[in-house]
Amino acid sequence: MLKLFEYNWQVRADWFTWCETVPEEELLEKRGGGIGSILYTLFHIVEVEYSWICGLQGKSEPEEPPFEAYASLSKVKALSSQYHREVESFVTSWTDEMEELKLAETDSNGETFSFKYGEIMRHVIAHEIHHIGQLSVWSREIGRKPVTANLIDRGLFG
Amino acid sequence: MLKLFEYNWQVRADWFTWCETVPEEELLEKRGGGIGSILYTLFHIVEVEYSWICGLQGKSEPEEPPFEAYASLSKVKALSSQYHREVESFVTSWTDEMEELKLAETDSNGETFSFKYGEIMRHVIAHEIHHIGQLSVWSREIGRKPVTANLIDRGLFG
Repeated sequence: MLKLFEYNWQVRADWFTWCETVPEEELLEKRGGGIGSILYTLFHIVEVEYSWICGLQGKSEPEEPPFEAYASLSKVKALSSQYHREVESFVTSWTDEMEELKLAETDSNGETFSFKYGEIMRHVIAHEIHHIGQLSVWSREIGRKPVTANLIDRGLFG
Repeated sequence: MLKLFEYNWQVRADWFTWCETVPEEELLEKRGGGIGSILYTLFHIVEVEYSWICGLQGKSEPEEPPFEAYASLSKVKALSSQYHREVESFVTSWTDEMEELKLAETDSNGETFSFKYGEIMRHVIAHEIHHIGQLSVWSREIGRKPVTANLIDRGLFG
């Protein structure tokens, strides 16, 4: 489980580096087929990961902060770093016994669902990889080579 | 590990169902920002998964079959089903002890690399999710709602 989070964090850092080479107006331009701009997508990845990890820690899940307050590369990077300490601490202390714990969620109709912790952890992993796939399309559309999505050969396995 | 493979297989089946509602010429049209058409992307996912699993089983990795021979939805689906039996059998018999086994690969310059089995398994998982992210963009571009990428709420955790 940890290795896939580490992969996501490394790929995210690579995309932040990639963003430094791209004019900010390109990063903020609304793109088709996803959830918004390149920068909004990175903000969303950061925010969703943190929100679920808060839930798994038994903390109340924070309201999504308004993107307008974070609409620059430096601010999204800073938010990612700020949240990362807590996220990393939770993920690195994960144990197999936590798989079966349950988190109850209430939807907008007041209905309650519960999900196993193991299900949520894998959801968070897949969520980031999925959105990064969208970035790769937009990157090539603006004539830039995307960050490699390869998991092998990143030094994650020593 | 198994749960993320099961997620990928379920999402892939959902995309095959989605493809049935889309004219085949749309499925075969070359798209920008990825590796080709929607159908070629699905073919590539199927082929790459099988090829790595062959390697992990100690079998020689098959040559990538020519896409021209599989350029229809029914043929890609049939190939996926054909390979799936072997892939599923390997993945469901995975044990933690296999994590550290090593597979040697030779690149086009004749250089040899080796990867841990655990690294390759996670690479295969991330590879499919990444490409599915690309399909989601193209899907919305042609005015079709994509398959949900959510991992929660798919019944994968009973």
